[in-house]
Amino acid sequence: MSDVKSLIYRDGELKLLDQRKLPIITEFISCRTYQEVGECIREMVVRGAPAIGATAAYGMAIGALTSETQEVSSLREELEEAAEYLRGTRPTAVNLFWAIERMLKVAEKNSQLSVDELKNKLLEEAHQIADDDIEINRRIGSYGEKLIAVGDTVLTHCNAGALATVDYGTALGVIRAAQEAGKEIKVFADETRPYLQGARLTAWEMVQEQIPVTLITDNMAGHAMKIGRIQKIVVGADRIAANGDTANKIGTYSLSVLAKEHGIPFYIAAPISTFDFTIKTGEEIPIEERSSREVTHVFDVQIAPEGVDVFNPAFDVTPHENITAIITEYGVIENPDAEKIAALRSQIEKEV
Amino acid sequence: MSDVKSLIYRDGELKLLDQRKLPIITEFISCRTYQEVGECIREMVVRGAPAIGATAAYGMAIGALTSETQEVSSLREELEEAAEYLRGTRPTAVNLFWAIERMLKVAEKNSQLSVDELKNKLLEEAHQIADDDIEINRRIGSYGEKLIAVGDTVLTHCNAGALATVDYGTALGVIRAAQEAGKEIKVFADETRPYLQGARLTAWEMVQEQIPVTLITDNMAGHAMKIGRIQKIVVGADRIAANGDTANKIGTYSLSVLAKEHGIPFYIAAPISTFDFTIKTGEEIPIEERSSREVTHVFDVQIAPEGVDVFNPAFDVTPHENITAIITEYGVIENPDAEKIAALRSQIEKEV
Repeated sequence: MSDVKSLIYRDGELKLLDQRKLPIITEFISCRTYQEVGECIREMVVRGAPAIGATAAYGMAIGALTSETQEVSSLREELEEAAEYLRGTRPTAVNLFWAIERMLKVAEKNSQLSVDELKNKLLEEAHQIADDDIEINRRIGSYGEKLIAVGDTVLTHCNAGALATVDYGTALGVIRAAQEAGKEIKVFADETRPYLQGARLTAWEMVQEQIPVTLITDNMAGHAMKIGRIQKIVVGADRIAANGDTANKIGTYSLSVLAKEHGIPFYIAAPISTFDFTIKTGEEIPIEERSSREVTHVFDVQIAPEGVDVFNPAFDVTPHENITAIITEYGVIENPDAEKIAALRSQIEKEV
Repeated sequence: MSDVKSLIYRDGELKLLDQRKLPIITEFISCRTYQEVGECIREMVVRGAPAIGATAAYGMAIGALTSETQEVSSLREELEEAAEYLRGTRPTAVNLFWAIERMLKVAEKNSQLSVDELKNKLLEEAHQIADDDIEINRRIGSYGEKLIAVGDTVLTHCNAGALATVDYGTALGVIRAAQEAGKEIKVFADETRPYLQGARLTAWEMVQEQIPVTLITDNMAGHAMKIGRIQKIVVGADRIAANGDTANKIGTYSLSVLAKEHGIPFYIAAPISTFDFTIKTGEEIPIEERSSREVTHVFDVQIAPEGVDVFNPAFDVTPHENITAIITEYGVIENPDAEKIAALRSQIEKEV
C-alpha cells in the first residue's frame, strides 16, 4: 500500500481526500449518505476513472446501509434511486456506470437473502471493486517495474497515481513498484497545464512517498530529454483503441514525439478495462474541449487579456507507432498493434 | 508603427509601459531622471534586449538633459556616473552595455561642442538607437512576411514582439508585416510557462492589433500541429551561434522537433546583433537556471507541494538542422549552417 489514499471506508463512513485542495491542504471529506458521496463526485473532490468507480460503489453500499426498510424489494427500489442519482453526477465517466451496474446486479442476484444479509453483500462487493483496483495496479506495477533500470529518471505526465485510483496508481504504480524493488529511481513530473495535475497531485504523491521528484513546466520536457536527464517515460491512459492508439491528457502526444526523437522508451500503463475494442483507431476517439477559463486563469488569477480566443482540448491521441509498450495487468504488449492486442484479448477471454 | 509601444519619449520624459502589470492593467511609468530609468530596468518594468538598450540610451540622454553644469568636461563626468549606475541594473544584458557605450562615445567625439549642443546630440543618438531598432524590425518583417501564405495560422512562443523591442518586434514583426500585406493570418500563442510571456504579452499585443489570436498551453502545440491547425512557426532568439544553433525561451527546442515531425516550417526572426560569432555551436551557450518559485507559484498562488525539487532552465538550444530559415534584417538564411552564416556576415561587412 502507498501512503496516499483517495478514499477510506470505515463503519458506514466514506472519507474522500479532497483533491481540489491539494497540494496545499490535505483534508478528507466525510460521506455518510449516498447523496453526499454523489456530491463529492460531481464537485471533483475525487477524480480519475477507477477512483470514481470505487467511490460510486461505496455510495451504493452506503445507500443500502442507511436504508430503514425491512423489505428486500423496497431496498432494491431505493438502490435504483441511489443509482439514478449517482449516474447523474459525472455523465461521461464510464467507470461510474460500470460500478453502479455491478452493484445493482449483486442486489438482483441476491434478492433471496435477508435485508441485513443483502446489505453486507453489497458492502462486500464495494470492497471487492476497490480491492480489485488495487490488485490490478499492483500487477501493472509488477510487470512495469521490470522495464525500469536502477538509477533511471522516469518522466510522467498528469496524474495516473494513487489519487486517480483507489490506491497505488497505474503509471505511478510502475514507479512505486520500481522504488519497492530498490531501484533508486527519480521522477520528473510535468506540471500538466491547464489543470496542473502534475504539479498539484503527482508531485504531492511522490513527496508523500519520499520518491525524489523534480517538477518541470511542460515545455521543459524536450530540453530535459536532450541533455540526458530522462531515461524512461511512463504515463496513464484515458482510452485505448483496438490498435493501441491511446488517448491521454493533453501533452502526452508531444512527449511521445520527443521520446522518439531522443530514443527514449515511451510506456503506457493502463488496465485492460481502458481498452475500447469498439474503436479501431485513435481517429475515432472524440476529444473533449473544455472551458477557456482553465487556460486564461490559474486558480482565480487571470493570466491572459480579455478578448483572446482559447483552444483547450483536454486530451490528445498518441499513435501506437510512438508507444514502446503498453503495460497491463495481464502483461506487457511491446510495439502494440491491432494484432497483438487482439491476441492478448482472446488469451484473457480464455482464462476468464 | 504598431499600436503597442514599450517606450515613448517626449520633452524630457520617458514613459515606459509597465510590462509587469500586463495584461490586466495598461499603465505607463514616467521617468524624468536617469535614476528613475535605471530603476525601471532593474525592476523589469521594461524587458527584452532591444527595449532595454533603447531605454538605457534615453536614460543617458535624460542624465545629460537634467544636468545643471555649464562645463562640457563636468557634463561628461556626470554621464560617466549615469553610465555606472545604469550598467548595474541588469548585469547580464548585452544590449544595455552596448547602448551605454554608444552614448559615451558620442559625448567623447563631440566634446568640442557647447553643453547645450552636446545635450541635443545625445538626445539625437538615443532617438537614433530607437529608430534603428524599429527599422531593423521592419526589415525583418519585410523579408519574413514573404514566407507566410494567405490564411496561414502562425504559432509563436514567448514574446518577441513590440514589447521586447522599441516597436514592431521580430517574430511578431513578421506577423505584423504579413497582416499589413493583407494576408489574413491567424496567430496561435503558446502561453510560455513559467513566466507566461505568451499569455500575458503576446496575446495582449495581438488583441491590441486586432490580429486574431488563440491562446494555448505549451503542451497543446503538438496536438494542434497534428490536427492541421498550424501552418508556420515563427519565434525570436536570445543568442545564435556561428553555425545557426539558436538559444531561445525554454520550449522552443520542443517546438522545433514537433515542427520537423509534422513538416511545418520553423523560422527564427532575429537581428544580426543576436549572432554571437565567438561561439561555434549551441553546445557552448550557457543555459541560465532561474528560481524554483517561478515554477511552484503562478503570480503569488502556490501550485506545487512543499519539498518538491524544481528544474527551471530559462532557455534551450535549437540545433540549426531543425531551423527552416533564420530571418534577419539583411535577408533570409535558409537551412542555416556555419558556411551560409559566414557568407552573410562577410557580405554585411563589405557593405558597412
